Amino acid sequence: MSAAPELHITLAGTPRAVAATTTAGQALDADGRTVIAALVNGEPRDLARELADGDVVEPVTIESEEGRAILRHSTAHVLAQAVQELFPEAKLGIGPPVENGFYYDFDVAEPFTPADLKSIEKKMQQIIKQGQRFDRRVVTDEEARAELATEPYKLELIGIKGSDAAEAAEGAGVEVGAGELTVYDNVHPRTGEQCWKDLCRGPHVPTTKAIPAFKLMRTAAAYWRGKETNPQLQRVYGTAWEDKDALKAYLAFLEEAEKRDHRKLGSELDLFSIPDEIGSGLAVFHPRGGIIRRVMEDYSRKRHEESGYEFVYSPHATKSTLFEKSGHLDWYADGMYPPMQLDGGQDYYLKPMNCPMHNLIFDARGRSYRELPMRLFEFGTVYRYEKSGVVHGLTRARGFTQDDAHIYCTEEQMADELDSLLTFVLDLLRDYGLDDFYLELSTKDPEKYIGDDTVWAEATDTLRRAAEKQGLELVMDPGGAAFYGPKISVQAKDAIGRTWQMSTIQLDFNLPERFDLEYTAADGTRRRPVMIHRALFGSIERFFAVLLEHYAGAFPAWLAPVQAVGIPIADEHVPYLQEVAARLRAEGVRVEVDASDDRMQKKIRNAQKQKVPFMLLAGDEDISKNAVSFRYRDGSQNNGVPIDEAVAEIVAAVRERR
Amino acid sequence: MSAAPELHITLAGTPRAVAATTTAGQALDADGRTVIAALVNGEPRDLARELADGDVVEPVTIESEEGRAILRHSTAHVLAQAVQELFPEAKLGIGPPVENGFYYDFDVAEPFTPADLKSIEKKMQQIIKQGQRFDRRVVTDEEARAELATEPYKLELIGIKGSDAAEAAEGAGVEVGAGELTVYDNVHPRTGEQCWKDLCRGPHVPTTKAIPAFKLMRTAAAYWRGKETNPQLQRVYGTAWEDKDALKAYLAFLEEAEKRDHRKLGSELDLFSIPDEIGSGLAVFHPRGGIIRRVMEDYSRKRHEESGYEFVYSPHATKSTLFEKSGHLDWYADGMYPPMQLDGGQDYYLKPMNCPMHNLIFDARGRSYRELPMRLFEFGTVYRYEKSGVVHGLTRARGFTQDDAHIYCTEEQMADELDSLLTFVLDLLRDYGLDDFYLELSTKDPEKYIGDDTVWAEATDTLRRAAEKQGLELVMDPGGAAFYGPKISVQAKDAIGRTWQMSTIQLDFNLPERFDLEYTAADGTRRRPVMIHRALFGSIERFFAVLLEHYAGAFPAWLAPVQAVGIPIADEHVPYLQEVAARLRAEGVRVEVDASDDRMQKKIRNAQKQKVPFMLLAGDEDISKNAVSFRYRDGSQNNGVPIDEAVAEIVAAVRERR
Repeated sequence: MSAAPELHITLAGTPRAVAATTTAGQALDADGRTVIAALVNGEPRDLARELADGDVVEPVTIESEEGRAILRHSTAHVLAQAVQELFPEAKLGIGPPVENGFYYDFDVAEPFTPADLKSIEKKMQQIIKQGQRFDRRVVTDEEARAELATEPYKLELIGIKGSDAAEAAEGAGVEVGAGELTVYDNVHPRTGEQCWKDLCRGPHVPTTKAIPAFKLMRTAAAYWRGKETNPQLQRVYGTAWEDKDALKAYLAFLEEAEKRDHRKLGSELDLFSIPDEIGSGLAVFHPRGGIIRRVMEDYSRKRHEESGYEFVYSPHATKSTLFEKSGHLDWYADGMYPPMQLDGGQDYYLKPMNCPMHNLIFDARGRSYRELPMRLFEFGTVYRYEKSGVVHGLTRARGFTQDDAHIYCTEEQMADELDSLLTFVLDLLRDYGLDDFYLELSTKDPEKYIGDDTVWAEATDTLRRAAEKQGLELVMDPGGAAFYGPKISVQAKDAIGRTWQMSTIQLDFNLPERFDLEYTAADGTRRRPVMIHRALFGSIERFFAVLLEHYAGAFPAWLAPVQAVGIPIADEHVPYLQEVAARLRAEGVRVEVDASDDRMQKKIRNAQKQKVPFMLLAGDEDISKNAVSFRYRDGSQNNGVPIDEAVAEIVAAVRERR
Repeated sequence: MSAAPELHITLAGTPRAVAATTTAGQALDADGRTVIAALVNGEPRDLARELADGDVVEPVTIESEEGRAILRHSTAHVLAQAVQELFPEAKLGIGPPVENGFYYDFDVAEPFTPADLKSIEKKMQQIIKQGQRFDRRVVTDEEARAELATEPYKLELIGIKGSDAAEAAEGAGVEVGAGELTVYDNVHPRTGEQCWKDLCRGPHVPTTKAIPAFKLMRTAAAYWRGKETNPQLQRVYGTAWEDKDALKAYLAFLEEAEKRDHRKLGSELDLFSIPDEIGSGLAVFHPRGGIIRRVMEDYSRKRHEESGYEFVYSPHATKSTLFEKSGHLDWYADGMYPPMQLDGGQDYYLKPMNCPMHNLIFDARGRSYRELPMRLFEFGTVYRYEKSGVVHGLTRARGFTQDDAHIYCTEEQMADELDSLLTFVLDLLRDYGLDDFYLELSTKDPEKYIGDDTVWAEATDTLRRAAEKQGLELVMDPGGAAFYGPKISVQAKDAIGRTWQMSTIQLDFNLPERFDLEYTAADGTRRRPVMIHRALFGSIERFFAVLLEHYAGAFPAWLAPVQAVGIPIADEHVPYLQEVAARLRAEGVRVEVDASDDRMQKKIRNAQKQKVPFMLLAGDEDISKNAVSFRYRDGSQNNGVPIDEAVAEIVAAVRERR
């Protein structure tokens, strides 16, 4: 045999010459367990794919983001294979990886039961143990149709062309429209038997043995391709990880997140509810939630006032005229509540945003450069028609209150304003207890923007410089800006590591034009102001939910609805504690005395369940010493603390927002 | 001639015997100028009407409420007579007395011009000088039709029967439907000639000479009987008084009220606007108005918190279900904005009231007697579809924010709760600067109420006792209660003597039933709580307008948007004043320094126009003494006031709400 001709490739950054039929796996010397796929010229590929001259090859490890997605996609195949072995009549929908896991949709006569999921998991373990190979095969449309003749949904996907293709492909993991069509066979490693197959663009792990840890999570109904007029399929969700510890950590995280679910805590702590009589996504705040919200708002307002913001008020409904002028009816109508017709034919809309109203206030009289920057602030409740499927507690509601400000400034003021704004925003978020941030800069979408290129470039640069000054990680979001201007968003990590998009700082080149906003410059000319939209909490309701989950309900004292509770050892100690409570109340502390019929231990448990920061216990001995027993939320206790000290400690904890 | 048989009457409380054909005027020995009509058995009558046996007769003086209404009604007749003499083609609509005056509607080809009004006034003066008699004549329907054959609107009134009659009669001053039909002739005193006539139920002053002082005010278009599909008539408004001084005082009052008009001041002081782009009755608050409103709200909130109110939040829109449950859609649908249809067929409404939402919060979990009284408070913005004709600035708006609380208590707690509530309400109104009150008690309408008679009687009695304890005038409003419970309202007089209905305290026997609200009593039984609705300001916007008019924009320092302004004598004194301002700002004072290019006198005038409470002037002499010249809103000035003193004085004025 003659020596195979050489290929010149770049392997993990280093030029290499390899034999002609070398696979990505061979080049990488991949074990198929830690390195499970390759990036070839930036595209993920099976390890078994042969390389071509000039290829740039990188390993994909199982614990990388790309690696986990491939692992999860392969696990979805195993799920589907197991389902079809156990339920031969099941027809396949799609089975993509998703955040933290995967799903696969099936057309079956009956929803899967928990017992079914157990059997399916067992069957999957058998398949994994066998170490079936994922073998890739290019097919023509006709071949695919013939092979998948009994899978109507797959046939539909093969048939999709043009604009639907990308969308369908995204969910389906199927190469459709342009490009080649591929089938993956699951092949028995010893017998070579084709155990199962799926229309799929891949790539996959080399064999099912490369799936170290997985779990099926739950089932849910889902319409085929998300359309309500399509057949309803059964979706099975699962998760898969690079090792058993990672799976265990993820399941623990889920359990923790579940415990912290703001809807659950909101009910347990009697903070808010979303009554069915009112409607989806529309919450009422109960007295205790009302306190937290009010304290949140008050502190924010105080800080805004100190920073030169002016408070305005605007109504929740307005004539369509205003949203025609602002353009919202052109590009945001789907997100708005339907109109109400008044006065014989005039459409009124609930406002989805406050900006048009603030523009009217700016424009209510002539403005001079001396008045700029003008910072108009409102706690403005807006209404957005979120689809019922995406509405979720307070984090995705249909009515919510923005801590919304619009800043009008000169071009010369913009850089300083953005600097101080970003510092202000981050400082304030830190005061509420979030302190792990990164920034995201969304830049121009070259396909969809208005305004001058130079203005965009300069503004984006100004935003970037402001972001960099903060010394935080800056993530670029190229093309992610709205058509009317670039944006910085502040992403915050919570106590269990989840990232929440918090504040946004959005430049707007559009509305000042549409509203013909002007000010008189020092030289007497009329100029267009720069307009900045910014919300710090985003929505008060959502921020409330984020803090509730971040603190798992155990708010710091300054935010806690009840800051201290007096617990008598016996009934005769109630009056003493009421005197202590009166002293605290005089200092502005929210304090209660539990004079109920419950026994002391029960009262302590109740206060702990309510996550009250401070418990003040008192019995004969405490009274004799003019003291209380000071008990903390973590269960620790200091006995015989003089009342003065106890009061001082609580007052200090509240004042210092500890 | 035989002596006429005697009638036994009661004259001003005293039994009397008079001759059979004695008129009311003769019995009262009325001069026709001060006593212009009679009350016979409680009904107003012409002095010329003969009395019957048993009649109880009282004089009606021209300056009494009843007397002025009669005077104004007669003046309206003179107006109509003058118009028909000058514009013979004018057809008559209706011409009733109204508050402080009267109007008459005419069908004419062209609106009246100001010059027309002058001519009409002149003609009216001539008629008045002639002393024409108002002669009453009973007619049949047929006679009336024949006599008024050329007056189509009068013919229509004659034709009105049944349920429309009362309504039409109210505006028209015409006796229609049941009862006799009457015509009043204006008769020349010397010639006996019938100069003019009108279909009218009377009564009237004896002759036109009894009209001492009148003035035509303005014209406006008005639809016949208030319906937009009817022909448009021209309404002439006038006023008439018992003497020239009273007329002069009234015109001065109007001028003062005009100066204080909150819409005018709102614009001059840059406090708020009602932009046409947003819509009728929907205001935006500008930064300066925002400050006043926020201070108003903050102080109210603080006081409410101290008094045991709990703050809640509820959305502005809700499913129709909730308003079906509350009954609002049965009896209040006309006052509501039209529905928005969401989620494929579910109607959502803007809330006109907050009570249903508060009931849901009360009902969110089981309640114990230990939690009562529960006082749920919200600054709740509601939307009501006021007819465009009645919308007026901030006092009659379509969207407004109620300082709305609902109190749930036991029956035993009701009396104490009402006592403390009324004291609280009056105290708080006094803090805002209103101090001239009377109370009104609206009691059961026997035709329209729900609930038990005993419960009504007891509740009304409790309200009455609470009202009486305040030592204020108590005016009864018999039958004026809403169907669901009796009510106390607080009426406040402003700086120019106008009465505004402020706070209402409303018992509700209806909603606790409809929402099946319950609490567990001490004995373990389930009981229905008593529900009290109360709004103190009524609406924040309206109260804002009342205070703005009450103070004519010169708010006390604690409410003023800018509390102090520094005015340098020359530019070089600016830095000094900025230091003074910084000291004030550190004390929480809202202070500005006028560093504009204007001259000092102009700056003082500007600050006066803006009604800033305190001006701090500084020049070389002030600086050398570490002092300022302290200038007040009234123009008085103290020179050389040490800075410490000036700061202390301003801080004290704000703190003490002077």
